[in-house]
Order: sequence, then structure tokens, then C-alpha cells
Amino acid sequence: MSDSKSNDSLKTILDDASNLSLNQIRRLLKKMTASEIAHALESSPPKQRNLLFSLLKTEEEGDVLFELGEEIQQDLVSNISNEELIEAVKELELDEIVDILQNLPEERMNNILSNMSLVDRKRIEIGLTFPDNTAGGLLNTDVISVRPNNSINEVISYLRDQSDLPENTDKIFVVNNENEYLGELLISKIITSKPSMLVREIMDTEFFPIDVDLDDKEVATIFERNDLISSSVVDKDGKLIGRITIDDVVDVIREDADQNLLGMAGVAEDTFAPPGRAAKSRVFWLSLNLITAFIAASTINLFQDVIDKIVYLAVLMPIVASMGGVAATQTLTIVLRGLTLEQINTSNIRWLFKRELAVSILNGIVLSILVGLVTFGWFKDITIAILISCALVINLISSVIAGILVPLILRKFNQDPAIGGSVVVTTITDVVGFLSFLGLATIYLI
Amino acid sequence: MSDSKSNDSLKTILDDASNLSLNQIRRLLKKMTASEIAHALESSPPKQRNLLFSLLKTEEEGDVLFELGEEIQQDLVSNISNEELIEAVKELELDEIVDILQNLPEERMNNILSNMSLVDRKRIEIGLTFPDNTAGGLLNTDVISVRPNNSINEVISYLRDQSDLPENTDKIFVVNNENEYLGELLISKIITSKPSMLVREIMDTEFFPIDVDLDDKEVATIFERNDLISSSVVDKDGKLIGRITIDDVVDVIREDADQNLLGMAGVAEDTFAPPGRAAKSRVFWLSLNLITAFIAASTINLFQDVIDKIVYLAVLMPIVASMGGVAATQTLTIVLRGLTLEQINTSNIRWLFKRELAVSILNGIVLSILVGLVTFGWFKDITIAILISCALVINLISSVIAGILVPLILRKFNQDPAIGGSVVVTTITDVVGFLSFLGLATIYLI
Repeated sequence: MSDSKSNDSLKTILDDASNLSLNQIRRLLKKMTASEIAHALESSPPKQRNLLFSLLKTEEEGDVLFELGEEIQQDLVSNISNEELIEAVKELELDEIVDILQNLPEERMNNILSNMSLVDRKRIEIGLTFPDNTAGGLLNTDVISVRPNNSINEVISYLRDQSDLPENTDKIFVVNNENEYLGELLISKIITSKPSMLVREIMDTEFFPIDVDLDDKEVATIFERNDLISSSVVDKDGKLIGRITIDDVVDVIREDADQNLLGMAGVAEDTFAPPGRAAKSRVFWLSLNLITAFIAASTINLFQDVIDKIVYLAVLMPIVASMGGVAATQTLTIVLRGLTLEQINTSNIRWLFKRELAVSILNGIVLSILVGLVTFGWFKDITIAILISCALVINLISSVIAGILVPLILRKFNQDPAIGGSVVVTTITDVVGFLSFLGLATIYLI
Repeated sequence: MSDSKSNDSLKTILDDASNLSLNQIRRLLKKMTASEIAHALESSPPKQRNLLFSLLKTEEEGDVLFELGEEIQQDLVSNISNEELIEAVKELELDEIVDILQNLPEERMNNILSNMSLVDRKRIEIGLTFPDNTAGGLLNTDVISVRPNNSINEVISYLRDQSDLPENTDKIFVVNNENEYLGELLISKIITSKPSMLVREIMDTEFFPIDVDLDDKEVATIFERNDLISSSVVDKDGKLIGRITIDDVVDVIREDADQNLLGMAGVAEDTFAPPGRAAKSRVFWLSLNLITAFIAASTINLFQDVIDKIVYLAVLMPIVASMGGVAATQTLTIVLRGLTLEQINTSNIRWLFKRELAVSILNGIVLSILVGLVTFGWFKDITIAILISCALVINLISSVIAGILVPLILRKFNQDPAIGGSVVVTTITDVVGFLSFLGLATIYLI
């Protein structure tokens, strides 16, 4: 519900939870949707989060758990009993149950499955066989399928018997006797067609079903490119096994964007993770940077003599390094975006490289004149002003090479270029920055 | 179409366009959907892009133009005549036409509007009055509305008369004689209800319509929280003026994520922008970094004496600065994510601040021991090893203060914290890093 009442409840809970009585909070929670409650939990520090969750009724817990990010979901699930969890997920859709159960320790999962009805267990076990990041992980089995020889009239009375269609049902699917996918039929087309017509006459066969093994990001691309609400999913024999709906695809898009943003800074945690976990998630990145910082430092170490003679080289050297780092991050970001959107390929990478080179030379000229002028104004030394300008141009050109090659190489070795890229790239520009500036100084000033 | 044939055409065009004859390309384009063609255009350098676009038929151009990013769309539109543009957009939906026309120079827009039929002109002029980043900018006027006293039977025959329902029609809307919004009616509910029932008996009144002035990011939140396919839009008097559909909302989500990623690196351009434009888009950020780099340099300048005496301080000082920069970027990223998802508010910011402080102290202890050990191993100087460890802890704590306060302050002054944040934050950690390390060295080593 884009319900202003429930939205107010959300605001009240977020801003004043500590001033409210438990009964007041319970009343507010009752007015909120599952995803608003999930948002409130994600916006709360751990203690308050556990309190809010404990105030939910068991039958609400399932929907809320599904809406939560993986980390918080696992925390909360680990605090409730098996019986309560089974009760909580009972009414969920298959993909939602699987999403919650798949992260459990194996023993606990087996325990829970063995306490479910045989039908549920079979269904969930099939769902659990699909990897999380594929079409199978987004699969719902609540499909409605009809045969090509059915008349529209038959289809309508069949639908009427269902009393309630599954959410986001914009189409139903047409299969043969072997349950092989033949085509699809829009609900809006059913309603606007003559009741005497046959399914085969009005069904759409132009759309191809999604393969159950397809990567979930590619599923998102297909949905976006074709403005889909739902799509059929088939196994490798072309048999209809379920459907994917747009709401789950939107979650994939959001999570993907979230991971890109966090990955570039080397953080992987929810906003209100406890300190120990947050520290752990970030220390790898910081340690990696420590190594690269010592690599940059040992470059400077080569030039102790020249710094000893002309001490303001030490003052100026971080400028060259820092400018290269920013330029490299810009190039890296453009390449990462192009790779994510699958815009970059062998046919246009040369063009892109030349363009980046042209950009770095254009900006290099402008910036090196600026740097040269400021440096001259500051230290009244024309030689050093010229040297820093030249070093800056060299470093901006190195930033292009690093910003383009590093993500491509990381990708070649099946690493996520968003995650490793920025630290590697700025190390290169630091080293080249110190090397070019102090190196030129050694040649021309000693 | 998630059509494997058209997907193959896309791949062939992207990889081999330069080896194909114009007729071969034309044939491939014919097999592709508008959004695949748009993707091919966005993945092509400007020259090839203009060639591909020129091979499209006029009636295809409209759909393709709408699917393109703003920058490329404007480039291509500026190359075609008014007559061709009018012809191209003729068949588009209102929000699509408005999306394309609103970026035109005023004179050209007036010229085009005056060459359209009166009905089209009126309709488009209304659409143009809504700002781009509001619900109004996503508005479609292709709504189907019925009255509460209509029977389901009447509704069905009315729908049947439409022959084709607008795309993404999962529901129709219920209004009174004054066109005021009363409720909505799912198509799936129409099909499963008894034909004799009245609209008022089965309509849903639980959902509130979206206000035409609502920010488009909030529209996206409402769609996500409630898993909507479409929603009604009303003016300030509660009158139904149109609807928003999920496909346009997905575009908002994608663009928002794209801008966050690019904003943090200070780039704002499409992947294959020509060099002049790309250089211009990035030079502001680089110039800003130049200023901050000189600020950091002047901090070092204060300590020329101590560096002159102990030259390897210059070797080690970038380590402290660089570690602080990485830690600050991590904190900044977490805060930016929390602000974007509206998770951070006055009630939990103190908890977050304390958590970040705890993280920086935890990681500070681990990392300062490491830095101290490596430094001692390198320079065999216990005092300098202790000093660099202390400076690192100080800078990690300063990184928390910067990483949290800078985005909050930028936001207070209505600046996008994603865009200004990272340069300001790393300047602070550079200055504090140099100041603490060289300052401690001055006190204890001279």
C-alpha cells in the first residue's frame, strides 16, 4: 500500500521507537506492510531490531524475513526456533521460502525439511537445487497453464474457479501434453477476445522462455529490454517449470547496484552491522592498501638523496600522485559501467582507449599549466614548475592505461573488477607519480 | 522479445559492424527490438552510432530514441529534421514523447508543437508542465476508468471494445462523475468475479494514488515496497490524471544507481562520449582535487625542517594519509548507502557514529601494529615505528568524523553527498595524516 497511514507509522517507529510503549509499537507495526517493517528493521541497530522483530506475530515473520537483506535475515532466523520458522514461512511463495532456507546450516535445514509435509518438502527440495544467482533462484511455481485446444471460454471459467490469481499474473502459459512450453497468453488478451476463439489462435509464440540456468543479471536485462511483468521458465528439455515476476527482478537490480557501490570501497555489510562484523568486513581492504602504500613508499625511498637536497620535492610529490589517482578512478568508473552494461567489447575497446588518451592529454595540458603556475608562484623555481607539469602529464597518461587495463585483466581472471580495481589502479598511479616526479628531479636538479 | 534470434543480431552488430554491408546491417536491425537497437547505439562510438541510426526507418526511430540515455538522445535528435521527429514520435506514449521533446531548445520545441494536431499539442503541453524528476514526468494518460455502479459484465464488454489494452495494464481505475479517484480494480479480479457483481463491491480502496508532484525516487520506493505493476496518479484535487507503470520505474532505479556510481568519481557522461565532452565532464573534479592537493601539500610545507633532518619521514608520510583515505571512503560509502535507502535518521545516527568509531579503533589497533612492525623492520628505528602507529590511529579516527559529517553537512546544504563527498573527505584525511605524523615527529624527534 502506498498508504500514507502506514508510512506515518514507519516514520514514527524510526524516529521515536525508544519513547514508545511496547503496545504502541505493536499497534504501529500492525498498520505497516511487510516491506515497511523490513525497512524499519534494516534502519535499526541490532538491539532495537531484535526487539521489533520479537513483537511481530509469527504469521507476519515470513513475509518480513523475505524482504530483508541476506545478512540481517540470517541473524534473525538464527534466533528463532525451528517450529516458529516452519510456521512463519508456511504461507510464502516457493522462491521466498527457498531464499530464507538456503542460507541455513545444513543440519538445521534437514531438521526443518523433515518436519514439513511431504508435498512441501518435495517442492522446496527442488527449489533448493537451483543456485541463488540464476533464474532458478527467482523461480515461482505458481504458474497457470492451459492447452492450445482450449477455448477462451474454457480458459475464463477455469480462471474463475481459481477465485484468486497469483500476484503479478499478467499472462498464463500454453503447454502441450508433455508440459512443454508452446507460448503465452496475456490476461488482457483473454478479456478482449471472443469467447469462442481457441488458445492456439491468439497465443503469443514470439517470446522465448527463460532458461532455468540463466544468470540472474541476464534475466534482469531481458526483463528491462522487453518491459516484462512475468516470464516463463523452462528446464533444459523445454518443459515449463515455473515463472519469474518483475518484483523479484527489481530486487536483483537493486542488489546489483548496491554491490557495485559497496564493492568499489571494499565494504560488504549492512548499514547497522555490529562493530566486530563491520571491522572484519573492511580490514581486508585496508590491509591490501597497507601493502600497496608500502610499495608506493619504497618508490619514494629510492629518491632519499634528491629529497635530502631539495626538501620541497617532498611537499610537492603527493600532488602528482593524487591527481593521477583521481584521473584513474574516473577512467576505471567509466570502464566498470561499460562492462556492467555490456557496452564494451573487442570492437570498441580501441576507440575507448584512444578517447581516454585524448581526454587525459586535453585535461593534462590544462592541469599541468595550472600546477606549473601555482608551483612557480609558491617556490619561485621555474625548473621545478616545469618538472611537476611534465610529471603530471606522464601520470595522467599512466592513469588511462591503468584504468582501462586493470579491470579488463581482473575480468579475464574471473575477478570482480569493481572490487579489486580501485586499490590496484591507485597504486599504479602512486608509483608512477612518485617515480616520474622524483626521477625527473634527479635527472635535472642534481 | 527475449528472442535468441534478435540477441544474436545484437551481438553480430556490436562485434562486426565494420565488416558488414549496409544492407546486412539493415537486415540485422530489422530483427532487433527497440531497446536492443538502443543498446547497440549506446555501445558504439559516435560515428558508427550516427550511421546505425541513419539506417533505421522513421517509424522505428521514436521507440529507439526513448530507450536511449539523455545525452545520446539529444545528440541524435539534433541531427534530424522537425518533420522527421514529428513522424518518429507520432506513435509513442505521452511520457515517451515528453521525455524526448522536453530537452529541445525552446524555439525548436514551439516549432514542432505548432506543426502537430491540436489534440496532440494540448496533451503534450500538459505533459511538459511536469518536472522530469517527479511522478508527473513518468505519467501516462492511457488509463482506463470505470464507474462504481458499472457491473462486471459491463466492464468486460467495455474492455472487449478496446480490442487492445495498453501495455502493462494489470488494473483499471474507478472514478466518480467528477473524475475523482475512488479505487482500483485488478484485471485478474475482473476475470475471476461473477459478471453480475458491481464494481463498487469488488474494487480495492486500500491503495492510495500517487501524487503527481511526488519525487520520482519516492515513486520507485512505493513500487518496490508494494510490488506494484502500475499505480494511479492524481492531481492536487484528487482527480485521476494518469498512471505510472513499472517499466518506467525500473528505468528510474537504474539511472539512480548509475548516477550514484558515476557521481562518486566525478564523471557524468555516456560511455562513448567524444573526447572533448568527456574531458569537460571530468575537469571540474580534477581541478577541485588540485586545490585540495595543494592544501595537503601546504600542510607538509609546515614541516620542511623535520623532513630536512630525517628524510625518511617523507618516505613514510603518504602511508598514513593513504590509509586514512581508504577508511574514510569506507565510512562515507556506508553513510551514502544509508542515506540513499533512507535508513539513517536522527534516532540512529549516534549509534552509527559510535559503531564507526569502534570499527576504526578495532582496525586501527590491528593495522597500527602491522605498520609499526614493518616500519621498524625497514628503518630499525623504534621511535619512528611508534610514531607512525600513533599517527595512523589518529587518522583513522579522523576518517570516521569526516566520513560521517561531510555527507550529512553536504545534504543539509542540499548538495548531493555522493558527488562532493569523496574529494572533501580524503582532503581531510590527507591533512590530518600529514599533520599528525609530521607533527608527532617534530615533537619527539627534534
